[in-house]
Formats: sequence, structure tokens, C-alpha cells
Amino acid sequence: MERARRRQRELVKPPGSLGRLEEIAIRVAGMTGEERTHAERKLVLIFAADHGVTVEGVSAYPSAVTAQMVHAFAAGTAAVSVLARHAGAEIVVVDVGVASPLASDLPIEHRKVRWGTRSFMDGPAMRRAEAVTAMHAGMAVVDARRADGIDLLALGEMGIGNTTAAAAVTAALLDLDPERVVGPGTGLDEVGVARKHAVITRALAANYPDACDAIGVLAAVGGLEIAALTGAMIRAAAARIPIVLDGFITGSAALAAARLAPGLAPYLIAAHRSPEPGHEPILAALGLRPLVELDMRLGEASGAVLAFGIIDAALAIHNTMGTFTESGVSEPVGRATAGSTHQPAIS
Amino acid sequence: MERARRRQRELVKPPGSLGRLEEIAIRVAGMTGEERTHAERKLVLIFAADHGVTVEGVSAYPSAVTAQMVHAFAAGTAAVSVLARHAGAEIVVVDVGVASPLASDLPIEHRKVRWGTRSFMDGPAMRRAEAVTAMHAGMAVVDARRADGIDLLALGEMGIGNTTAAAAVTAALLDLDPERVVGPGTGLDEVGVARKHAVITRALAANYPDACDAIGVLAAVGGLEIAALTGAMIRAAAARIPIVLDGFITGSAALAAARLAPGLAPYLIAAHRSPEPGHEPILAALGLRPLVELDMRLGEASGAVLAFGIIDAALAIHNTMGTFTESGVSEPVGRATAGSTHQPAIS
Repeated sequence: MERARRRQRELVKPPGSLGRLEEIAIRVAGMTGEERTHAERKLVLIFAADHGVTVEGVSAYPSAVTAQMVHAFAAGTAAVSVLARHAGAEIVVVDVGVASPLASDLPIEHRKVRWGTRSFMDGPAMRRAEAVTAMHAGMAVVDARRADGIDLLALGEMGIGNTTAAAAVTAALLDLDPERVVGPGTGLDEVGVARKHAVITRALAANYPDACDAIGVLAAVGGLEIAALTGAMIRAAAARIPIVLDGFITGSAALAAARLAPGLAPYLIAAHRSPEPGHEPILAALGLRPLVELDMRLGEASGAVLAFGIIDAALAIHNTMGTFTESGVSEPVGRATAGSTHQPAIS
Repeated sequence: MERARRRQRELVKPPGSLGRLEEIAIRVAGMTGEERTHAERKLVLIFAADHGVTVEGVSAYPSAVTAQMVHAFAAGTAAVSVLARHAGAEIVVVDVGVASPLASDLPIEHRKVRWGTRSFMDGPAMRRAEAVTAMHAGMAVVDARRADGIDLLALGEMGIGNTTAAAAVTAALLDLDPERVVGPGTGLDEVGVARKHAVITRALAANYPDACDAIGVLAAVGGLEIAALTGAMIRAAAARIPIVLDGFITGSAALAAARLAPGLAPYLIAAHRSPEPGHEPILAALGLRPLVELDMRLGEASGAVLAFGIIDAALAIHNTMGTFTESGVSEPVGRATAGSTHQPAIS
């Protein structure tokens, strides 16, 4: 990071004038251990699973949409498909718990742990061993792709009902009133949001998860895709791969991952700020500031893949821009001082 | 716009869930008159000029840097050079008033109106006819490039001292206290900012520009590149070309352009929010909300070209994503209602 910071000061621009683009390049250098990271191999992992809690009427869409969207990813017609083509990134979709059968020749990774979770309103969503198996599935996918090299990893999910699970996980891990983390998800009206709030309140009372036991929280009120995301993050951070988070649901998984692997947060880049109210306390707890705020609330890694463009631009500038000396441009009077006072704050 | 809005509702995602990406696609449809705009030919225009007011010590850099940076653009080593390559955009640099000689074989457009402005502390920066000639230069560059087609136009500038001119123009056009529009520019310390404030206050008193006469304001306290930007915007909007503004200085030119051509503001896209304090009142006056906020304060169209990536992504989704019918995905119950209540607000 120190070498990257020094290089930023030598590039032909007023010190600090590229703001957060400088911060990204310096942070990524810290993550990879390379002064200049070339983010050529970009991977998007989307974990898909269903949620028993949808029977309580907590989503605007029927559960069947989870499997339908997996087919849309495979066909390349989803928003994230378009964004990934645009960013030159590869997408891998992983079934860790879709409730309906998916044909074995569908071009996805088949790692189903169970056919969706149970409703967690009156008892746990899954067994602890199943949460661990889902985490292992996330780790295994990262491991399998590491051989080809992963320079940047975007993480996302698909699972009708999963803003309810993410809200419950966030409330449990951060010990927050459900009020602070419940939102409309994909488009609930006020009555729906009130119902979702009641479901989460009852689920937390019934399961009484222990905030100090992140795996227990995932098993009690989480989801199979949330557990898989947690595992993928832990493995990617250990391999020094920069992780680009999507929105609220990947954020809830990051909370769990940071509890289980306390050195993990510096490997996370927050792509965007979700309008879901529970995203804000997650970002605050992880010390992350999102790159963009575009009112996106689609999930499926769409925000993370959009942010690839900004991260790519930041790294391209860092890697290929000219220095003052190379460009024959005068530096300001008292540059050394100005340089040190205008360094961007690196979190 | 209505057709584009309808298409957004048919794409396979919860209505409104792509937030401002939907808004961009709908707004661009309104600008171009095409339901789907293919932004293949992206042009970056950078107008360069010098400012006599630099003799008052209002910039952290010497005037010579303007010409040096023009050479860096020509050599492709500047930040915007890297960003434009990354975005697949062409850069055209236009000298409308650099104070030093530039070799005629330098690959830029030579349209020098005069060798920099005069200091405007005690009298006008230039004659009214010179401001008009600079505006015409901006118009002519857009006209010359229109034959090849321009799908998206990013505008930027290079001119040591031009945050002082932009602050004076903004204060004059919006009738604001200089306090509200003066900032550190490329890196002034507190003493420098106080001096800049005093210079602008004195310049406004001495020139006493009329807020209702935008050309008079540009001549009195503006800059040649600011006037050229104003002309370029007027011509581009008339040709229904979407205009991506950079930061504070292009914003001050947009204020002048919107005064001279009152139907112009809908053709503007604000790329980023500059930390310069004068940018905020400009955005408010034009009714614009920037796409990103990354603490960038470099100028040279860098913020606008960075935003190309987001606009491109928004248009790619709009143009190529699948619909619910095409993807075989269920729509939510009561979709028609949900669709209309979740439309993004279009400004």
C-alpha cells in the first residue's frame, strides 16, 4: 500500500485529485500485495437458494421465480448477464438450495445442500451442519476457480424471500431492533413490510440466536445462499482476492464472515448503497463506504458488477498513467507538503 | 421517453429495481428521440485556455502547466487519456486560449481566440466579441464532429486558474455571495482560499456583471474555455446529443448555456459531484443529480469520462436485457400497479 500511495503522488495530477479512485488503487494494492494489480480475470459468483419463510407472505414474488431467474442467468438475459458482458466478466451461478429441480445439463454449478430452507418463524431455517455444508460449497467454488486465477471477485445472490433472511441475520448479529433493518425488498407495500417485520420479530424470539455464534445465526434465520456467500468470502480473503460486495444480502453475509474471520473486512469493497434500510448499519459495522448510490435494489450481483467499471478505471489510471517526470509537467510549489496533506483517507 | 419507460417495465426485474440506471436510459431516450440509444461513438472535448487572474496567486500551480497538460493529453499520459481508452472514447483537445505557443503539428484543434484572458480583478477578462468568438469555436468543433456522429459527448477543460473564473461566473449568474462558491481548487491552503475569495469579491465589484446577460458575465469574469464549453453545449443540445458534464467548471458553463438556451438543461447529465463548494448550487439551479460522488477534483473531463461506464451499462441493460415474456419468468401479483408506483422519478 505504501508503494502504491507513493506512485499515486508521482502521477501527473494534483495530489488527491482523483479522490476515491486513488483510494481504490491503494486499497487493492494492500489486498493483493502487488503495487499494480491488473484486474483482467473478473469473476461473478451468484449463489441461488429458496426460503421457506416465503410461505408467510414476505415477498412480492412467488418462490418459483428463484429457479426461473437461474434459467435467465443461464440464458444470459438477466440484468447481471448484460452487465457482466459489458465488464468482460465471467458469471458462475451456483445452486446451493433452489427448491425446484434444475436440469443437470443447465450450465450452472450444482451444489444443492437442501431443497430450500424451512420457514424460520417458529424454529431454525436449517440444521447447523447444513449451514456449514453451504459455507463449504461457497469455499469449494472459489477454490475450484482459483487455479485459473481470479483478479476481482463480485458476489451476489438470487433467492426470493432473502431480504427477510438478511434482515433477520443483520438484526441478530448487530443486536438491532428489526424495525431498523426491514424494508420493501423487491417491492412490498406497507402492509407487506409490516407483516415482514412481525415475522422477523417472532423468528428472533423463537430462535433466540446468539450474536457471538455467526454460524448459529446463519442456521437459525439465514439462508443457504447467505451461508455460501459467507464461505466464499472467507476463502477469497484468505487467498488475497479483492471481494466486491453487492448490496444488503451480500452485506449480511459479510457481517457473518467478518465475525468468523476477523481480518476479513480489509478485503471487501462495497459497490453500492442499497435503499434497503438494513444496509446502512452493515456498512457502518464493517467500516465500508460504497462507491455509488444509484437506488439499485435488484441483487443478483448487479451493483457489484456495475462497480467493476469504476474499479477497473481506478486500476487503469494507477497502472498506466504518466508521472510528472515522464510527462514534463511542473509540480506545484511546496509539493511534498501538499502531497502529504491531500492524501485520501484509506480505510 | 414514454416508450422507453414502458420497455423498462417489461424487462425481467422488479419494477424500478435498477434505480437510476433506469432513469438514465429513459432520459437519454428523451434526448435522442430513440427508444434505444446505442452509444457507440463517444467523444470527449477538452477546451484549454489560460487565465490572467493567476497573477493574483489564486492557484497552486503555475500557468505554464496548462500548455504542459495539453502536451500530456496529446501524448496520452493524462488521467483522462487512460479513462478515455478504457471507455472506448475519442478525445479532442481544443486550444481556445492557451497563453504559450503550441506547435502547429501538435494533434489538437488550434482555435486560439487570444493568448489567455486578462486578470479580471479590476476590469473584464476579455472583450464581449472575444467571448462570442470562443463560444463560436466550441460550436464549430461540435459541428465539425457531428458528421461522423456523436452518440455521447463528454465535456471538460484544462486551464490553471479556472476554478477562480468558474466561481466568479457562478456567483454572478446565481447572485451568490463568493463565500458559497470559493474552494481550494487543485490544492490551495486556507490562506490561498482567502486570497481567492478577496480576488473574486473585488472582481465582482469592479466588473459588476449583469446576471441577466450571460455573455456579459463570461466576458467580464469568465474564461475562454468556459465560453467555448457554453457554445459547445448549446450546439450539442440543439443536435439532441446527450451531454455529460464534468464538475464545477463545466457546470458554470452549463449555467450560462441554460440561460442562453432555456430548453438546454434536459440534455445534461451530471457525472459526479465535485468537492468544490460552488458545484452544489449549480446542480440545484440546473435540477441535476450527479451519478457518482468520488471526491474527484481533477477536471480535464475525468469525471465525465468515468461516468461513461455507468451510462453505457444503463443503455446496455435497456437495449439488450430480456423481458419477462422472453425469459419465462413470473411477474408479481398486481404487477401493473406495482409498476406504476415504482417508476423512477425522471427529472
